[in-house]
Amino acid sequence: MNTRQENTSAALADNAPEDTRIRRSKLATPLITLAHGGGGKAMRELIDDVFIDAFSNPTLNTLEDQARVPLAELARHGDRLAMTTDSYVVDPIFFPGGDIGKLAICGTVNDLAVGGATPLYLTCAVIIEEGMPVETLRRIVSSMAETARAAGVSIVTGDTKVVGRGSCDKIFINTAGIGVIRQDYQLGANRARPGDRILVNGYLGDHGAAVLNARGDMHLTSPIQSDCAALHGLIFALLAAAPGTRFMRDATRGGIASVLNEIAEASACGIEISEAATPLREEVKGFCEILGLDPLYLANEGKLVAVVPEAEAEAALQAMRAHPLGQEAADIGAVLANGRAGRVYMQTVLGGRRIVDMLIGEQLPRIC
Amino acid sequence: MNTRQENTSAALADNAPEDTRIRRSKLATPLITLAHGGGGKAMRELIDDVFIDAFSNPTLNTLEDQARVPLAELARHGDRLAMTTDSYVVDPIFFPGGDIGKLAICGTVNDLAVGGATPLYLTCAVIIEEGMPVETLRRIVSSMAETARAAGVSIVTGDTKVVGRGSCDKIFINTAGIGVIRQDYQLGANRARPGDRILVNGYLGDHGAAVLNARGDMHLTSPIQSDCAALHGLIFALLAAAPGTRFMRDATRGGIASVLNEIAEASACGIEISEAATPLREEVKGFCEILGLDPLYLANEGKLVAVVPEAEAEAALQAMRAHPLGQEAADIGAVLANGRAGRVYMQTVLGGRRIVDMLIGEQLPRIC
Repeated sequence: MNTRQENTSAALADNAPEDTRIRRSKLATPLITLAHGGGGKAMRELIDDVFIDAFSNPTLNTLEDQARVPLAELARHGDRLAMTTDSYVVDPIFFPGGDIGKLAICGTVNDLAVGGATPLYLTCAVIIEEGMPVETLRRIVSSMAETARAAGVSIVTGDTKVVGRGSCDKIFINTAGIGVIRQDYQLGANRARPGDRILVNGYLGDHGAAVLNARGDMHLTSPIQSDCAALHGLIFALLAAAPGTRFMRDATRGGIASVLNEIAEASACGIEISEAATPLREEVKGFCEILGLDPLYLANEGKLVAVVPEAEAEAALQAMRAHPLGQEAADIGAVLANGRAGRVYMQTVLGGRRIVDMLIGEQLPRIC
Repeated sequence: MNTRQENTSAALADNAPEDTRIRRSKLATPLITLAHGGGGKAMRELIDDVFIDAFSNPTLNTLEDQARVPLAELARHGDRLAMTTDSYVVDPIFFPGGDIGKLAICGTVNDLAVGGATPLYLTCAVIIEEGMPVETLRRIVSSMAETARAAGVSIVTGDTKVVGRGSCDKIFINTAGIGVIRQDYQLGANRARPGDRILVNGYLGDHGAAVLNARGDMHLTSPIQSDCAALHGLIFALLAAAPGTRFMRDATRGGIASVLNEIAEASACGIEISEAATPLREEVKGFCEILGLDPLYLANEGKLVAVVPEAEAEAALQAMRAHPLGQEAADIGAVLANGRAGRVYMQTVLGGRRIVDMLIGEQLPRIC
């Protein structure tokens, strides 16, 4: 079984030689059929052959429709259960830096961790379009399994539905997650106070630009990589260094502009960020200029906004910079003492000051 | 706010007069657009206007991407957390006896309850096709809210994605659920023992027949109603009367045939049921005959199979029959002392004996 898992993982590497990608399937057909979602023998075989083997863990319950965890086990991690859910519909399903499976794990791990919860258990529900190659599904599931293992979370129960051709676009994945919040963590969007610093853990907009570029309309020669990553390690390093942290949020759909607006509204305060201090890759900047996009609204999948009391901001920055996922961490602004409640401003490099509103309309559909 | 909720509920009644269905929407557009899934202002407005108002409960967290529950609150219900997930892709989304929203609550409540867990908290993630009327979404969400309230569960967090026209079929809903299992409940598919009785709580196949009929090919004059229902009340009445109950499973996709096969396999025993004792409505029987379907494989959404020690079977039956959802409960067979492990047999009304295999292939796509 070990050998099989290694082979599957190897198949994810871009430069894997052709022969290692071949894994003997026990399934009768190379394509997903409606029968694979029918609740009978074919579904059982698909689950056994593709999911169970990849997700293998002691809590994964193959006989029942539910996973079970002793509450005593949860209580080791804190005093409050956190629960979250996200469906992933990203198009294309494979992109530089990730794929829909990796995204489905990282996104839900991050939603738990930004609230101070240790991510523990995930569910995995897939809706597959009839006709998808089983090997494509296997590649996605392997990516989920690998990402979950690296993040220390277990996928403990799941669901498989198949719909007819044209009734969904390839595959949609839902992951719901539970974690436990430590007694001493008290985070909330409404806790920002004047003087607090606004920190981010690195370059913004990579995911949005990478996915848009992967759709193939731009043909950039140096493709931008998605920043898709599980941030819980970085987050707990930050919290250890800055225990007074007010709030964190991963800046996914709607970008950091939307996160900042939510904080400003929930805390009834004004926020000002500096364009010069905001980390943006030259490629992403150029990409946005060509397409007329504002990078503040571009989706990230491995970037967070943290609101930290001024006295702890330097320690928080250092902690993030010491982590592989926070080397380009930056202090980009502050909560204002006299700003209009609910308003976000940006000091531009030209010396002006503009309002950063919430995203209006749709910048990029199916970005996650 | 109360008035608004009542209006929305009233809109679900088939005979509601036209004018009560009109509810002033705060949204700028009568149709769902890609912007409603974009993470910005339009999404916020949709969530506030359609979801928050309907799902309103103290745990529903509108500011964060996660809901939080004290572990001490969970521990009041038992010692083990149960976790489950299901995506619902039923076609059509409205059918006699229910809709995709009601189904999404009942299905997940039932998956928790059959394991002996008190259903407590649900997540709700929707994937909507661009162009769906907002009022259709509102009707579905109202149905979810009403069903959840009746079942005593709270919808505590959610996610909204919108995909382009043709990228999904109207709406898919994922609900993940958590519940807590009482200390003294020990249920498992592998616990069936020779002599145990096989019980069901009523007529089989209604949901499958209702949905298939609603697709409109048959034009039956007396439409069959789906049995879609939350079974936790019935289940806890059954467990109180028959505390030695070995196992329960709601017989959804794959029908009771698949459930019986799973029990027979997991417990390494044979099972025999009696065709004469198996409750089937005449309409469903006729429907199956016309279409060449086997009702044992038809999906149910309010029916369970229970394996109960012989000594407690009568008490279990009486408890079910005393409940509104179990009036036609029946003892349909037994675990054999000398049957071949993993095999399910049926004594036919003609006196023969046939093997009831797991569902092979696909009987009815998108039944749930």
